[in-house]
Amino acid sequence: MTEHISQQEHLGQVAISGVTITPVAFRDPPLLNAVGVHEPFALRAVVEVHTDAGTTGVGETYGDAAHLKRLQVAANALIGADVFNINLLRQRVINALANDSTEGGHGMSGMVTGSSAADRVLAPFDVAALDIQGKLLGVPVSDLLGGSVRDAVPFSAYLFYKWSGHPDHDDDLWGSALDPDGIVRQAHRMIEEYGFSAIKLKAGVFPPDEEIAAIKALRAEFPDVPLRIDPNAAWSVETAIHVGHELEGVLEYLEDPTPGLEGMAQVRRNVSMPLATNMCVVSFQDIPPAIKHGAVDVILSDHHFWGGLRRSQSLAGISETFGLGLSMHSNSHLGVSLAAMVHLAAATPNLDYACDTHWPWKDKDEDIVVPGSLSFADGSVQVPTTPGLGVDLDRDRVEMLHRQYLECGLTNRDDTGYMQRFTPDYTVKTPRW
Amino acid sequence: MTEHISQQEHLGQVAISGVTITPVAFRDPPLLNAVGVHEPFALRAVVEVHTDAGTTGVGETYGDAAHLKRLQVAANALIGADVFNINLLRQRVINALANDSTEGGHGMSGMVTGSSAADRVLAPFDVAALDIQGKLLGVPVSDLLGGSVRDAVPFSAYLFYKWSGHPDHDDDLWGSALDPDGIVRQAHRMIEEYGFSAIKLKAGVFPPDEEIAAIKALRAEFPDVPLRIDPNAAWSVETAIHVGHELEGVLEYLEDPTPGLEGMAQVRRNVSMPLATNMCVVSFQDIPPAIKHGAVDVILSDHHFWGGLRRSQSLAGISETFGLGLSMHSNSHLGVSLAAMVHLAAATPNLDYACDTHWPWKDKDEDIVVPGSLSFADGSVQVPTTPGLGVDLDRDRVEMLHRQYLECGLTNRDDTGYMQRFTPDYTVKTPRW
Repeated sequence: MTEHISQQEHLGQVAISGVTITPVAFRDPPLLNAVGVHEPFALRAVVEVHTDAGTTGVGETYGDAAHLKRLQVAANALIGADVFNINLLRQRVINALANDSTEGGHGMSGMVTGSSAADRVLAPFDVAALDIQGKLLGVPVSDLLGGSVRDAVPFSAYLFYKWSGHPDHDDDLWGSALDPDGIVRQAHRMIEEYGFSAIKLKAGVFPPDEEIAAIKALRAEFPDVPLRIDPNAAWSVETAIHVGHELEGVLEYLEDPTPGLEGMAQVRRNVSMPLATNMCVVSFQDIPPAIKHGAVDVILSDHHFWGGLRRSQSLAGISETFGLGLSMHSNSHLGVSLAAMVHLAAATPNLDYACDTHWPWKDKDEDIVVPGSLSFADGSVQVPTTPGLGVDLDRDRVEMLHRQYLECGLTNRDDTGYMQRFTPDYTVKTPRW
Repeated sequence: MTEHISQQEHLGQVAISGVTITPVAFRDPPLLNAVGVHEPFALRAVVEVHTDAGTTGVGETYGDAAHLKRLQVAANALIGADVFNINLLRQRVINALANDSTEGGHGMSGMVTGSSAADRVLAPFDVAALDIQGKLLGVPVSDLLGGSVRDAVPFSAYLFYKWSGHPDHDDDLWGSALDPDGIVRQAHRMIEEYGFSAIKLKAGVFPPDEEIAAIKALRAEFPDVPLRIDPNAAWSVETAIHVGHELEGVLEYLEDPTPGLEGMAQVRRNVSMPLATNMCVVSFQDIPPAIKHGAVDVILSDHHFWGGLRRSQSLAGISETFGLGLSMHSNSHLGVSLAAMVHLAAATPNLDYACDTHWPWKDKDEDIVVPGSLSFADGSVQVPTTPGLGVDLDRDRVEMLHRQYLECGLTNRDDTGYMQRFTPDYTVKTPRW
């Protein structure tokens, strides 16, 4: 199989010759969370990095306006940089954003604001550079990350409370889920279609006892499936401990039950299940105090805010060293992000849990990659073995989703503002209960 | 420069087809340290990894007998593994050594015994695999590690107290250095020849006040050169604090003044200069307690016992995250190790200090790489930009140094035993003063 291989001539530097940043919007159902409800469209940005070698790589990231602005600042600074030198790309991004005073653009509707702007901006360029490296070298990105330790990456069924459809629109295909029965129905449908063997419930929407009841209903229906609940810090320490006691022996982990490292540490001392987070440990500077406080057991990594794939591997090394579990967080995303998540997960030996993904919530006909390269079987995605990320942009779809971005009028994710259009006195309270 | 580049066909897997482990010995001067004196020959092992693609890569590691035995066990387990999958190589090495009950083989003459056997054994295979990857892909190893952030890697002048020559042999070219004058003379000579702009004194040999005097003599002679002293834990906490006070404002860092994390933490609270270590933090499991105790400021990385270049990058990420400085440790070594150290250092943005190297102590005509690819200018080594490590084995020299290994009769580094041949009542005491 390998007899055709010959050693390559020295490649030399491969310089970035241009960057194309394309904001896109795709339809999103009215998924409820602790700060409101998903708007009719989710925003993303497609970042294409072009090189003087003629090869282009792609990354995907948030589509909020402030983030787009920063991406452009970084793109300008990256022209001429060698795509093989991700250390240099990082340094240029940091320098380019040194005087950045833009507010917002965190991509998380206010739920996570402590991530590093430089790492958020670096991420799609890191992914695109690795895509280019892989294409030029003839190896999948997972090889560039140290090699795949699994052929397929398992994901979890990510359940949401939701309305039956967006107000003034028809019901969507998923229908409503506003109580335990609705959640169980949603779980059945999602598992039947995708084969997931772990379940996560996005909580923080209804009073905690209703959400406890939903988890207990899931446990009764799926006795052997690992279960997680994530209220996005909607609970006080006391409430979180109450939930932890009620769900003892039921949860795989309890995710971000309460705000802040100290609150998390208090909860952790009083419940028996592992505590996970993608809210109180969201950048490298959060790690030392989290370890000092004994605040968490599991970190949900996310290359979109941890500075890309190579920086996420650094996070994985830290997790392994400090005996922390590692899982993976998801935002609403498209196929380029899924491919990047799969390569990272494949090359991370200590990724201990099925990863989160919003993938099932996306309309099947709305993606930016050519169909066929990524698909779910038994809840897992096969790791691409073709060069680079292993996905190709579908130009027509990118164009269509870009027009949708222009037409939908949204420029920032605002779950809270959208909720307030229907419930004017709605406010975000952290903790709410 | 890049117009000739075309995207590569998918390489597929490149399987390890064989491993050649060649123990070698090279002449070493009678350098004194806290546990004795260097024997007339230093031992290393040259690890060549062959692939079914016809490309061979090389790594270099310790030459102690127990280590050679473990290397062979690992080599057998690595046949058939994909050289692009370093995660898999690591797993196979861990599994192969799971029942290892061999004693010793730490490569450090008893001074460091807490490093991970699996990481020590993995290291040369990781380096050789990256060498192969780079050759097959046409990129230098530094690119595979994220890209070089410096064109040249600075090293320090590594001074030793020493005898004028091995007993019953002629004086060597360096002559004796047994007092401040001898150390200053040695520094002048080494700096004149290599251009180093940092100085490290291996201490723990004479009573501390004599070594303080040597540092003060160096400071008087080289007022602007950063100075370090490393007694290999030969001092009690009280003595270490005394030395720290005496050398306040003089040292760049104080390296391993006293044994153990708690002792180091006590010293650290009582001296003003940073505390560095390559003795109390030598494996990933040492890091959490070191941080908890507040024991050290600077870690001297060493890919030979930290599991190779990729694992050393994980250490670098941890150091950056926890605000620890990063420097680099050296043993007596040959050119393959120097090349690996240079690529790693080049691709590590937070390597904050000039690296250690024993290079000047090696006879100029005793190396295993073809001359010309690595050389010192202004105390630094230019980072090779040719594919892989950028060094080629000199077959005649490897053969010569292997014969020397067979003829010299040494199979383990034993600085203490050698010292006892001349000073029968010599014993190792930690701390000694």
